Amino acid sequence: MNRKTNKIRIVKLMLVSISMLIFISCSNTDNLILIKEQGSFAVGGTMKSNPGTFDAIKRTPEGQTFHGDHAYVFYQIPNEAHKYPLVMWHGIGQFSKTWETTPDGREGFQNLFLRKKYSVYLLDQPRRGNAARSMEEGTITPTPDEQFWFNTFRVGEWPDFFPGVQFSQDKETLNQYFRQMVPNVGPIDINLNVDAVSALFDKIGEGILVTHSHSGGMGWLTAIKNQNIKAVVSYEPGSGFVFPMSEIPAPMESSAGPLHPVEVSMEDFMELTKIPIIIYYGDYIPEKPDSNPGTDGWRVRLEMAKLWRDVVNKYGGDVTVVHLPEIGIKGNTHFPMSDLNNKQVADVLSAWLQEKGLNK
Amino acid sequence: MNRKTNKIRIVKLMLVSISMLIFISCSNTDNLILIKEQGSFAVGGTMKSNPGTFDAIKRTPEGQTFHGDHAYVFYQIPNEAHKYPLVMWHGIGQFSKTWETTPDGREGFQNLFLRKKYSVYLLDQPRRGNAARSMEEGTITPTPDEQFWFNTFRVGEWPDFFPGVQFSQDKETLNQYFRQMVPNVGPIDINLNVDAVSALFDKIGEGILVTHSHSGGMGWLTAIKNQNIKAVVSYEPGSGFVFPMSEIPAPMESSAGPLHPVEVSMEDFMELTKIPIIIYYGDYIPEKPDSNPGTDGWRVRLEMAKLWRDVVNKYGGDVTVVHLPEIGIKGNTHFPMSDLNNKQVADVLSAWLQEKGLNK
Repeated sequence: MNRKTNKIRIVKLMLVSISMLIFISCSNTDNLILIKEQGSFAVGGTMKSNPGTFDAIKRTPEGQTFHGDHAYVFYQIPNEAHKYPLVMWHGIGQFSKTWETTPDGREGFQNLFLRKKYSVYLLDQPRRGNAARSMEEGTITPTPDEQFWFNTFRVGEWPDFFPGVQFSQDKETLNQYFRQMVPNVGPIDINLNVDAVSALFDKIGEGILVTHSHSGGMGWLTAIKNQNIKAVVSYEPGSGFVFPMSEIPAPMESSAGPLHPVEVSMEDFMELTKIPIIIYYGDYIPEKPDSNPGTDGWRVRLEMAKLWRDVVNKYGGDVTVVHLPEIGIKGNTHFPMSDLNNKQVADVLSAWLQEKGLNK
Repeated sequence: MNRKTNKIRIVKLMLVSISMLIFISCSNTDNLILIKEQGSFAVGGTMKSNPGTFDAIKRTPEGQTFHGDHAYVFYQIPNEAHKYPLVMWHGIGQFSKTWETTPDGREGFQNLFLRKKYSVYLLDQPRRGNAARSMEEGTITPTPDEQFWFNTFRVGEWPDFFPGVQFSQDKETLNQYFRQMVPNVGPIDINLNVDAVSALFDKIGEGILVTHSHSGGMGWLTAIKNQNIKAVVSYEPGSGFVFPMSEIPAPMESSAGPLHPVEVSMEDFMELTKIPIIIYYGDYIPEKPDSNPGTDGWRVRLEMAKLWRDVVNKYGGDVTVVHLPEIGIKGNTHFPMSDLNNKQVADVLSAWLQEKGLNK
């Protein structure tokens, strides 16, 4: 065999060996979440002080303070993160758990979007969960109401699950689902909540707000207030569609009661024409009035969302409303972010973020 | 130049190039936390059901349920984790934040021990924080009491910080520190809390319990109950030292009131002789009775801890009490896990875990 063939053979052997060495020596980071930074903090809030001087021996109320009404935030920044973090805001009766492990034990949006290299900020709004240090007194009564929520969350019509529902029917799932609720400590104060989330965006800079249900309406108000919110993603907004006086529709009646729009100034409204907005609704929303309040309330919410979209877009906005069954994604409840097909739901969002250039 | 020198030169060049290639192509994972798994869940708890059948239209109380009194847990498992996870249990008025980012913005025990390759489970006990879904009613009143806590946590004697205290004196630190408190929703129920944390160890298997302050006493009871607890680390236990009747000391008087021991059966007590236990106390604990209740209460706690150590060890146990200033670590408050020198405090714990073979 000639020298040239031998040299080529040696070089090939070295290249193969070295490739294997690289493969083995690099940490196999497949499937790991690489966290560059993580932590938690309180943001926003107010304080009050009692008059007088604190007595260290008697420890009476004089001269003592109370700091409360802040939001609590846990954040994670993955390695090589996209520029805009996702700030996820829970809905009524919920806390950050909405976005965490699903009731049936799979990864939630927190992990799914960390894997997509988004920084993820999960917040508990003032007077809820880990931010329960309320400046207002509150009495909390453990009132059995889980079947009300089961129906309102469109998991089914108790005790039946909807056919094809994207929700696991094993007993432990419902156990976890019911336990991911926490009470309000003190009254829900919309302005307070908006201020706290706005303070969060003041602190962290530009990002994308992701809301759910009750935080939908509060999300519009926060985006009006804070220019650092570069887009809003709203899952199943439950109220608080904002209109200027000239465009405000009548309340819409449903078996769950009337849905009222909210009036804002034209100047404020125009803020919402400046950023991309997407709204998602799931399945089992009746098209015609239905006697079941659990689902019928959503009929008028989807209807008002579409009306709202049209008005915002008429003024130059960029609002999209996605009714998931209409794009072939069926069986979603009020919680698409934690339903059985939540990976698909996340991918749909991911594609929209990319389409809008929000994944830089 | 001869062929042999050329070949050697080529081989050297290739080796250098390949080394650089390996260096560049491997993700530079220095300083990243590599997470293999993370998530959250509710554990333990009870439920109640109203009699009757749920009416989906009227949505009255009949036939509705309420699940509550569980603990909430957020966990992270790093890549190549040690066998035993650390389960961290907050103290009075606190939630998981005790172990998270410090009030002055540095990494807490959560991150420090993830970096040491321990799985870290942070819990909110029943009726607190994200586990506030209480089965008992509660009224929460925002009572200004932060100076009481400032003193009791041995940060100083309000408004003065202790000289040399391991606590940042900038205004934002105190702001964060006060906001890391959350109320109890409903009465604190020791047995309930012990049951929930025991249920956690039933779920996750063998591990190490890390307690703080009020959870110190509850920690002993949980270790008695659950064989999966292979060791207990207790920072500044505040109460609940357990003794068999034959060994129980008299209550110890202090300016903060009496410290009562707790009686348990000899059979239960003996459980605590079977596992390694370490207790840490910080600085500014008076050696003689002091009129300042904020510090004097800790005098009797440190004293009872040493007495308890001696009794447990007399029966064959392995309890160590470390008074940090006595090992040259000065300036610690009631929160060594989040004080300015918390890395050093963590390293001391890390060394003990290794010494006891708990870092396998």
